Amino acid sequence: MITLFDLQKKYKIKIVNSILAKNKREALDFAKKVGFPLVLKIESPDIIHKSDIEGIKLNIFSLDEVDSAYEQIVKSVKSKKPDAKIEGLLIQEMLSEGFELILGYNYDRQYGPLIMFGMGGIFTEAFKDVVFKILPVEEIDAIQMIESLKYSKILMEGFRNIPAVSKKMLVDIILKTAKMAYDLSGEVDSFDINPIIAWGNQYRVVDFKYISSSLKERENNNKIDITGIDRFFKAKSIAVIGATKNTERIGYLVLDNVMNHGYEGKVFPINPNYDEIMGIKCYSSILEVSDKIDLAVITTSLSQVPMILEQCRKKRISNLIIISAGGKEIGEFELEEKIKKIASNYKIRIIGCNCLGVFDSKNHIDTLFQPYNKMNRPGNGTISLISQSGTVGIAALELLTEYGVSKFVSYGNRIDVDEGDLITYLADDSSTRVIGVYIEGLEKGKKFFEAAKNTTNRKPIIVYKAGRTPEAIKAAMSHTGSLTGTYDLIRGVMDQAHIIQVDNFESFIASLKTLSLYKKASGNKVMIITNGAGVTIQAIDRIFSKNKLKFSNLSNDSKKLLLEILPKHVIIGNPIDLTGTATNQQYEVAIRTAINDENVSVILIWFVFQCKPITADICYILQKYSKVKPIICGTIGSDYTYEIAKLIEEKKVPVFHSVEEWVSATEALCLS
Amino acid sequence: MITLFDLQKKYKIKIVNSILAKNKREALDFAKKVGFPLVLKIESPDIIHKSDIEGIKLNIFSLDEVDSAYEQIVKSVKSKKPDAKIEGLLIQEMLSEGFELILGYNYDRQYGPLIMFGMGGIFTEAFKDVVFKILPVEEIDAIQMIESLKYSKILMEGFRNIPAVSKKMLVDIILKTAKMAYDLSGEVDSFDINPIIAWGNQYRVVDFKYISSSLKERENNNKIDITGIDRFFKAKSIAVIGATKNTERIGYLVLDNVMNHGYEGKVFPINPNYDEIMGIKCYSSILEVSDKIDLAVITTSLSQVPMILEQCRKKRISNLIIISAGGKEIGEFELEEKIKKIASNYKIRIIGCNCLGVFDSKNHIDTLFQPYNKMNRPGNGTISLISQSGTVGIAALELLTEYGVSKFVSYGNRIDVDEGDLITYLADDSSTRVIGVYIEGLEKGKKFFEAAKNTTNRKPIIVYKAGRTPEAIKAAMSHTGSLTGTYDLIRGVMDQAHIIQVDNFESFIASLKTLSLYKKASGNKVMIITNGAGVTIQAIDRIFSKNKLKFSNLSNDSKKLLLEILPKHVIIGNPIDLTGTATNQQYEVAIRTAINDENVSVILIWFVFQCKPITADICYILQKYSKVKPIICGTIGSDYTYEIAKLIEEKKVPVFHSVEEWVSATEALCLS
Repeated sequence: MITLFDLQKKYKIKIVNSILAKNKREALDFAKKVGFPLVLKIESPDIIHKSDIEGIKLNIFSLDEVDSAYEQIVKSVKSKKPDAKIEGLLIQEMLSEGFELILGYNYDRQYGPLIMFGMGGIFTEAFKDVVFKILPVEEIDAIQMIESLKYSKILMEGFRNIPAVSKKMLVDIILKTAKMAYDLSGEVDSFDINPIIAWGNQYRVVDFKYISSSLKERENNNKIDITGIDRFFKAKSIAVIGATKNTERIGYLVLDNVMNHGYEGKVFPINPNYDEIMGIKCYSSILEVSDKIDLAVITTSLSQVPMILEQCRKKRISNLIIISAGGKEIGEFELEEKIKKIASNYKIRIIGCNCLGVFDSKNHIDTLFQPYNKMNRPGNGTISLISQSGTVGIAALELLTEYGVSKFVSYGNRIDVDEGDLITYLADDSSTRVIGVYIEGLEKGKKFFEAAKNTTNRKPIIVYKAGRTPEAIKAAMSHTGSLTGTYDLIRGVMDQAHIIQVDNFESFIASLKTLSLYKKASGNKVMIITNGAGVTIQAIDRIFSKNKLKFSNLSNDSKKLLLEILPKHVIIGNPIDLTGTATNQQYEVAIRTAINDENVSVILIWFVFQCKPITADICYILQKYSKVKPIICGTIGSDYTYEIAKLIEEKKVPVFHSVEEWVSATEALCLS
Repeated sequence: MITLFDLQKKYKIKIVNSILAKNKREALDFAKKVGFPLVLKIESPDIIHKSDIEGIKLNIFSLDEVDSAYEQIVKSVKSKKPDAKIEGLLIQEMLSEGFELILGYNYDRQYGPLIMFGMGGIFTEAFKDVVFKILPVEEIDAIQMIESLKYSKILMEGFRNIPAVSKKMLVDIILKTAKMAYDLSGEVDSFDINPIIAWGNQYRVVDFKYISSSLKERENNNKIDITGIDRFFKAKSIAVIGATKNTERIGYLVLDNVMNHGYEGKVFPINPNYDEIMGIKCYSSILEVSDKIDLAVITTSLSQVPMILEQCRKKRISNLIIISAGGKEIGEFELEEKIKKIASNYKIRIIGCNCLGVFDSKNHIDTLFQPYNKMNRPGNGTISLISQSGTVGIAALELLTEYGVSKFVSYGNRIDVDEGDLITYLADDSSTRVIGVYIEGLEKGKKFFEAAKNTTNRKPIIVYKAGRTPEAIKAAMSHTGSLTGTYDLIRGVMDQAHIIQVDNFESFIASLKTLSLYKKASGNKVMIITNGAGVTIQAIDRIFSKNKLKFSNLSNDSKKLLLEILPKHVIIGNPIDLTGTATNQQYEVAIRTAINDENVSVILIWFVFQCKPITADICYILQKYSKVKPIICGTIGSDYTYEIAKLIEEKKVPVFHSVEEWVSATEALCLS
């Protein structure tokens, strides 16, 4: 059994002045020594919710009250929980003037050992202001935990009579708790140090609860495996199992996309009902094919897959894409488990089921079932994308048509290959400069975390995690364990892995585009230049609604220079408003000045192309200076505006058509 | 002088058990009678911040402590504020278990008399969770105040030992406070009833402060005046003062737009330097023109306007659009004041200065200075737009090209005609079905409120208010008066006027489009139908991040019907996921069922047009059913997707290309 006192004894975590009174005398002695107000509460391994059985008494202000409270608690516990083993009554000082904090540990099925930190009381319970990190945590993680709390500002600035809380002290408690979590991880499933009362550079732990370990074995499903993944993108021969002549069926559409759109390898349609499809020989089974098959794509019913796996083994096919639906998403867990087991035994790698598979822009491997006349494919580029949702993947591919994509995987139910494997593969893929990940829900959180953490030091990962509804979060509440899987948890873990997180699909695409063009910005100070200030007001709202970017202040030299060269009506601030009469030359002056000013990390330009003086030649100016410092453009308009925007994008300068995209792309660049 | 006790005596607002003790004896007697804990505080009209001079003592638990606290407070006040007039010491019960609330009143320069309600303490000071309403307020406003608090939920559900607070009781306190504000408005500039401790169906006011009236006169700048506004849109002859042959100048661009793009009235270029421009006679002054001039558009320097106004008077011109910049925005307040005064004397209506003026799609009056080859003009439609920012106005016009616009006004510095006048004019304009307003900052808040409130019962107003930065809000804090002008204030006032508020430009446009096509929805229950569930997850996140829409539950009959007709793999829930193999016919079944189900107010469809089975003919199905219940479509893709979307929009069914637009347009429709 671990007690509150062990925190102080073993981990030097300060607890509130307390004793475990074995009898009333000891409680009264403590009261005489310490003074009032006091709290008295039952201490029993069998009683977790003390207040439910009137096992706790607050606001004790006299010895008489200690006496009667002691009697009442003992009486109440005896009548309401007669079998509980009573260790004694905890009597402690009652602290009031301080912030209530909470620290917790739990072993999570997905993420492994986690610690949680947050503001306690109403903040945890009503505002869910908590943050999670995967163990081990270092000082930098502890700092991030403190800073990423929604109400961190209140802690750091103090409130009314409560002085500002020392960040250094908080880091110290978090790291001590992490140490304690590490030590206890074999014995307990979770613990809560709650509440911790903190004020200035003081704190005291008031209560401690834990749940003993009940986990039989701690699953290790976190092994990253990139064996054979390369072949999904470089297969020299592809069999389409379930190929058909029925032009409405997926078997037809996949075959068409694999065969008729640039893929130069061999293609083998497999279907016992046909001799040929689209003018090439069709085989009754993969076993009938004499050539080597690098990759098989399955469009038949999922129930046939176990049989097909046997054939794959014989044919030594080690890569399988299962397009077919009909697995977990409709409750067919067993079938998927069976497929998983066989594939694992035979060392066959699977992408899918219930997915679109792979698109590789270089080798033109394309297992999607969307026809080319209804969906554009992106050209070759440096963005690689992995998406749990096929629908979202399609949308992303189409929006990246001009920027280009290297590799795309829609992995669906991830029977085998998952985010962790793919991210790790892409980390070493020289044709990938930035990785975009769209997730609805993770299954192997720790694996994902490890993969991301080991990748972000080499190339940026942008994640859009959907499925954050309060409905899902509502079900989970204050106790550490129960918050598992909520967006709060994932958000903290992604921060810890240095992932760039975005909050909507438009920002996802805009950030990918920008990071495919520019290296990480040298800082997060932005300078806005415009010929129409209206929309920039909206951008300022957006920028200051998050805490990611700072506004540049031009140096005095820069200001002086601009004042000299630019017309008088120009407003020299941030934004620099060149107004509707701005010419390309005036823009160049402003841009050049910002480029040369070390207080500027990124230049944000909002164009009103509808105004006459500015012309298409601006694209050359942007091209020139964007090689020195990142320039990110925004504009809203119709035909002419899009025409100019296209010219600029051809010069490798990103142009966005909404404030949200314009600002979020900048945030991604500064955080990358 | 108004005291805490007056609240109870005169307004039946319950105060905490208190007396104003004139001597220590009275304080001790009160303590004996009431018990502990107690609070003792100085009561003096000269001391507002009691704690600054140690004029307050909390947590008094015994008669001895009453005695010593009394001594200490008197001593401290005498030494720190020797001249203060002391009324006595307030001794009161100390309440702890309750929510802290705040109610306040202030007279605002822009909005007139306001009341404020919010959660007190940390909620007001750190989270700014307050809401404002313009007086008078009715029960419905009071309810809205309670419900629109960010943390309303906590109040309504209770927290730990604090039972849920009665909404009825809160409404009662708010209305009593409003009555009190009304009575006191002549005597005080502001008052705060703070804190109010509330729990269950109980509350007690603990403190009350006020500031006596110092306002000499209460400005009335709230008179709505629509005289002559009609002529801006229907002028039969237009003079362009400052017309020029220099194709780069605004005088040229405005003349070109007025003359060569469909306007059928007479046009008179005015410039002493030319005899003709663009092939028509140019006049040296408006006085030289013999015909009647309905409207003059000024593109010359602002400093010439006073002189031009004299000419206008002689020529009996009563409508002026001043495009020219150079007013308030660069500090020229006096010049604008002068123009305002002269125009008012001569009864000349002015739009501007520093604006784009007017675009009327029917009469082709177009005073913008953006050339037609760089900016598309919208066709005739039922949306009317007024915008403080020209830049934002241009963007809106271009994005509404296909939907059409009736009237557009960019009013800039609003020397005369402002939002209040224009909204009131458009309220009675039969060609306007929905009014869009883009504002950065209001000057005549009360006028705007009155105009909007008297319009929204006839047609919807959608407002996008930019300029909400925390920077602006930070400066203003807990005291009622100081929060003036912040977004919190404006938000409450706009709710009170039943304005539909949106949070970004995309939502602004999407909402306008939707409200130009559909009447208000019958309720706010939405049913999502899709052939690709991926993006709908994001929509669910978005829907539940605000509290505006509800999810429909199909009736059992509807579900049964769908189960019978649709294929087995279709997921019948909300969303109804027809999956990638969905056909037009399956869509029709789902739509028809939702149309016939009374649990559905609006149908949201997310299309993946990239999937083969769905075809362009879907537009006829949508056309048919959208006449019965509103259908709002969303889709993301490239060329083919836009092609189909366009076909659907031609059938008067809105299609959006982002989740934010899709959902926010639905919210607008349900709230309109």
